[in-house]
Amino acid sequence: MRIGVLTGGGDCPGLNAVIRAVVRKGAGVYGHEFVGFRDGWRGPLEGDTMPLDIQAVRGILPRGGTILGSSRTNPIKIEGGVEKIKDNLAQTGVDALIAIGGEDTLGVATQLFERGVKVVGVPKTIDNDLNATDYTFGFDTAVNIAVEAIDRLHTTAESHHRALICEVMGRHAGWIALHAGMAAGANVILIPEKPFDIDRVCAYVESRFKTRYAPIIVVAEGAHPVEGQMALQTGELDAFGHVRLGGIGETLAKEIEKRTGKEARTTVLGHIQRGGTPTAFDRVLATRFGLQAIDAVHDGEFGVMVALQGTDIVRVPLQEGTKELKTVPPGRYEEAEVFFG
Amino acid sequence: MRIGVLTGGGDCPGLNAVIRAVVRKGAGVYGHEFVGFRDGWRGPLEGDTMPLDIQAVRGILPRGGTILGSSRTNPIKIEGGVEKIKDNLAQTGVDALIAIGGEDTLGVATQLFERGVKVVGVPKTIDNDLNATDYTFGFDTAVNIAVEAIDRLHTTAESHHRALICEVMGRHAGWIALHAGMAAGANVILIPEKPFDIDRVCAYVESRFKTRYAPIIVVAEGAHPVEGQMALQTGELDAFGHVRLGGIGETLAKEIEKRTGKEARTTVLGHIQRGGTPTAFDRVLATRFGLQAIDAVHDGEFGVMVALQGTDIVRVPLQEGTKELKTVPPGRYEEAEVFFG
Amino acid sequence: MRIGVLTGGGDCPGLNAVIRAVVRKGAGVYGHEFVGFRDGWRGPLEGDTMPLDIQAVRGILPRGGTILGSSRTNPIKIEGGVEKIKDNLAQTGVDALIAIGGEDTLGVATQLFERGVKVVGVPKTIDNDLNATDYTFGFDTAVNIAVEAIDRLHTTAESHHRALICEVMGRHAGWIALHAGMAAGANVILIPEKPFDIDRVCAYVESRFKTRYAPIIVVAEGAHPVEGQMALQTGELDAFGHVRLGGIGETLAKEIEKRTGKEARTTVLGHIQRGGTPTAFDRVLATRFGLQAIDAVHDGEFGVMVALQGTDIVRVPLQEGTKELKTVPPGRYEEAEVFFG
Amino acid sequence: MRIGVLTGGGDCPGLNAVIRAVVRKGAGVYGHEFVGFRDGWRGPLEGDTMPLDIQAVRGILPRGGTILGSSRTNPIKIEGGVEKIKDNLAQTGVDALIAIGGEDTLGVATQLFERGVKVVGVPKTIDNDLNATDYTFGFDTAVNIAVEAIDRLHTTAESHHRALICEVMGRHAGWIALHAGMAAGANVILIPEKPFDIDRVCAYVESRFKTRYAPIIVVAEGAHPVEGQMALQTGELDAFGHVRLGGIGETLAKEIEKRTGKEARTTVLGHIQRGGTPTAFDRVLATRFGLQAIDAVHDGEFGVMVALQGTDIVRVPLQEGTKELKTVPPGRYEEAEVFFG
Repeated sequence: MRIGVLTGGGDCPGLNAVIRAVVRKGAGVYGHEFVGFRDGWRGPLEGDTMPLDIQAVRGILPRGGTILGSSRTNPIKIEGGVEKIKDNLAQTGVDALIAIGGEDTLGVATQLFERGVKVVGVPKTIDNDLNATDYTFGFDTAVNIAVEAIDRLHTTAESHHRALICEVMGRHAGWIALHAGMAAGANVILIPEKPFDIDRVCAYVESRFKTRYAPIIVVAEGAHPVEGQMALQTGELDAFGHVRLGGIGETLAKEIEKRTGKEARTTVLGHIQRGGTPTAFDRVLATRFGLQAIDAVHDGEFGVMVALQGTDIVRVPLQEGTKELKTVPPGRYEEAEVFFG
Repeated sequence: MRIGVLTGGGDCPGLNAVIRAVVRKGAGVYGHEFVGFRDGWRGPLEGDTMPLDIQAVRGILPRGGTILGSSRTNPIKIEGGVEKIKDNLAQTGVDALIAIGGEDTLGVATQLFERGVKVVGVPKTIDNDLNATDYTFGFDTAVNIAVEAIDRLHTTAESHHRALICEVMGRHAGWIALHAGMAAGANVILIPEKPFDIDRVCAYVESRFKTRYAPIIVVAEGAHPVEGQMALQTGELDAFGHVRLGGIGETLAKEIEKRTGKEARTTVLGHIQRGGTPTAFDRVLATRFGLQAIDAVHDGEFGVMVALQGTDIVRVPLQEGTKELKTVPPGRYEEAEVFFG
Repeated sequence: MRIGVLTGGGDCPGLNAVIRAVVRKGAGVYGHEFVGFRDGWRGPLEGDTMPLDIQAVRGILPRGGTILGSSRTNPIKIEGGVEKIKDNLAQTGVDALIAIGGEDTLGVATQLFERGVKVVGVPKTIDNDLNATDYTFGFDTAVNIAVEAIDRLHTTAESHHRALICEVMGRHAGWIALHAGMAAGANVILIPEKPFDIDRVCAYVESRFKTRYAPIIVVAEGAHPVEGQMALQTGELDAFGHVRLGGIGETLAKEIEKRTGKEARTTVLGHIQRGGTPTAFDRVLATRFGLQAIDAVHDGEFGVMVALQGTDIVRVPLQEGTKELKTVPPGRYEEAEVFFG
Repeated sequence: MRIGVLTGGGDCPGLNAVIRAVVRKGAGVYGHEFVGFRDGWRGPLEGDTMPLDIQAVRGILPRGGTILGSSRTNPIKIEGGVEKIKDNLAQTGVDALIAIGGEDTLGVATQLFERGVKVVGVPKTIDNDLNATDYTFGFDTAVNIAVEAIDRLHTTAESHHRALICEVMGRHAGWIALHAGMAAGANVILIPEKPFDIDRVCAYVESRFKTRYAPIIVVAEGAHPVEGQMALQTGELDAFGHVRLGGIGETLAKEIEKRTGKEARTTVLGHIQRGGTPTAFDRVLATRFGLQAIDAVHDGEFGVMVALQGTDIVRVPLQEGTKELKTVPPGRYEEAEVFFG
């Protein structure tokens, strides 16, 4: 069998680990051949391929990013895009496709499957907001990077009697903010799922200043106040759909300063959350995802994506993963609220 | 209510996060009082207590070790030990006990519960070998420390054309070796659950030397060859029941050198695997364990321990956790074998 | 002798290590007494003190920030400020003062010394721009944090064929940008000492895109283009005198996108550069500074500050350290230029 | 010009950074050609070469180890070795040689220079014991790895009321032990330069147990007691000349247990100290060494090695670096002693 592999959407620590596992088992154990498509769906759309064998995947396990490159190209939005992909797969002799990506990439995969392409999906989102899987790789790395940064902010906040705000990724779901905030001892965590009350935030800030510690606020980029409460500066979106600088973190700092009279400063973690070497958790998860994906292809089971359930890697229908966003349930947020203030 | 807390057995990153969560919710939300028992079961046995309030748990979330101290004291092996504990609990006015520890600590907790003590358990083992919970805190930290060390060994191995062996914790279960080895791209992983064939290990080593990379072997301290194959130097046990220096790693290095004619060196990670600041995963897990434990006490549900199942924290009967060791299932080891050699 | 200690200005990893060394040797070896002044010059100005003995400094060596607190209070700018300090020192029975801080703090110390106060200075600046000392503590930590972040940005840049800009501290001197950029393999480094030519920057960016790597630009917050070349958005200053968000990094990204047609993204490291545990280099340097400072006091040699020269810690006149800014010499920048493009 | 490059002796973080700087400036700025010799002196001895151009050194800056490989081959100890090297240099058309290595490698370089070979040396030793340079690259990385490990050991020691011993590299010189011990707050530091008194060590251990902290002892592998005091187990030497497991750390633990009745445990850091990505300090130092080395070759100044003096990179005669070992001076050890006990 000749199998194509592509990675789409924003990059994420663990992508290379998936690719390596797919090729190591697919070529080394099953004897399949592989072809890499460059830059997500742009690759099969334009027939842009690269060699992908055991030699090509040596040494990439600990490396962030993706050796295949990525893009946000969406063939569905392109006139005749899907047909072009089917033609190019036929021309390059590709029998089946492993598509590694988030909501958009898996959405395209689903449509291709419905039109007869043999495809298996591997879910990828640093935001952990994909349905049907307990966790996605990259999330644990992003959370650890944020926690390390917040651990550093604590001592500065204390030394200067100042509120520090750390803005993390999460446009629609607050998973990174929730986990990073809980792990790093934040005094307030603000997530998109629950509009915040600025008066209550300020009350937490002021109560914290009465201890010898200083307030640390972790805010997801998509968090927002209850309606009408603050003139929210919207912030420009970047190519990943993430809010660029000048977003909620900055707005919040100014508001807190105005209302409490204390200094407040914002750090926007930005792209360092999604680059670099993956944590052990993400390397193991990504590797196991890759192994299960190639097993599905080898078994001839298509139209599925791999998923983590408990400690097992399972296969679920592709549309399961993308039918709705997995947001933070109220119970999980209430756990974190115990530590507010 | 007045609640006692103790930590028993080997220390483990996340113990302080459990204690903090118990006290923050127990005192801050429910209004209970707390008393800390020093050094595991020695505390209630000798009536050795320390103050434990919200002030005492501030700032301890990122700290390794345990502010309560620990020991391997086992009251069951002491004449009249259990009675003494019941007396001391009565005398200090303690209504219920939260016992954080591994197999031994939870075994004692089970027996105390059977004799009428109101006790809730929190499972703790760096080795991840406790039944009924998907993971225990401390494990993720240990694996990450091992992976960082193995990442470092790779470049030395390559530069010197030498086999490098990394001996990690795991006397009866190979979880740390399995996860660290898979995450760090080990060429061979040896675990106690599956006696190894030294000829095959040497074959992997020699095949790896034919690439431009060098062999990295991750071995659990409790791994051993198939019967009769190697004169295994047993190694002295330390107070944690872990094998001290001069164990399987060293023996293996000498055997590989003798059989392959290549240099082999061993690094024994030892105690650095169990100390220091916990990873984000372990801080979140430990915090959620603490919250669930105090909820159980508050709900009056005793004789249970908390556990992770999927993404949920649940309560299971205390004896569930200790009735048998959770070892690495063959399927998980076969996943890793794909990358051997 | 009764010795006062204070820390002024922005916090910096290593401050606690200095305080600990001063007290451990001063109290433990020489038998002096200590008093801590809170929040920089605000402490002696308002007579706000805290106990400072061997017990108080236990465990603080690896902690960022300062247990004494800090502020930007400048007694010279306050009517009668210097006299008030002299009065309060007399009233609290303080015979000599150790002032740990940057240009401003040491400037005040110099003036106090000229008016008869027995003072010894310890230089502190994360920017490494203080004269008379080879390095200041905190700088090595800041550089390492920046390098870790840039290492992470590399893989994202490559995966997305995008230029990534990392804005680091350095309003007047480009030391952090120079060292971090050189250590992390930046393709362009921009520092305040040398106005940049935006055409040349874009040429480097475009030439880099022809390799399989992507351009990484490290820019000091105080860097600026040659006159008239770009409409530079000035950016608001924060309390440390550092440029807040919306500074040169963002401006540069927009300019590069406009001129090259490639995507460019900015990460502003901000406060994480100055918080958290110090590197080994900074802990050793800060400890040795503290030992030399207390030796100077014990020897009765005042009006001096401690400094690193080669591997020696020496004493130099206080005004030496502050008379002019230590900027990056042209030769050092030319070394880095070898790797541009 | 056609320039050969080789790396000899034990590997060291920063070797690749030197190679990269030599080639980037040598080929990119000066237009020279390069040839890599494999595995230290084995390369020129056997005429074993590899291509070395700008492409070959891309991406290696952050990588530990050496892309050229290393060995302990010493041509001086081989009959006709030096002549063979001269012949092979002539045959491969190599005009000049850059030799990167420690005492042995530079010793060979010196002899070759005396016999007419155009050679420039770059000093390399993780132990920091080479004369004529303030620091060597690799040392800062080794110290930071040790400090991170010792930071972790602290919490375990405290939780278990146990003495923890960390054995670090340093057979003849105690630099790593001194810096790591000082940076990590060790209670005792033992170095080869100063035979220790076991009674005094035990007194420090016992006095520390009276605080709420536990004793941490950092011991260089070459440390030893004053004559006649302890039956010292010598320990087998490995290929680097470092003591293998079963050395002074283990011996010390047993002795402390016997004499104080307290538990003591040893961690031997071993090879993780010399592998993996270099710190920012080491990357900058190694890069600047490489630039100066190629400048020396370009200037036609041979028989020199590069060295760090203060913040300058200078050239000194080759024999300067190797004529005697740079050991820890008594004054530096006395600084550390302030914190003992």
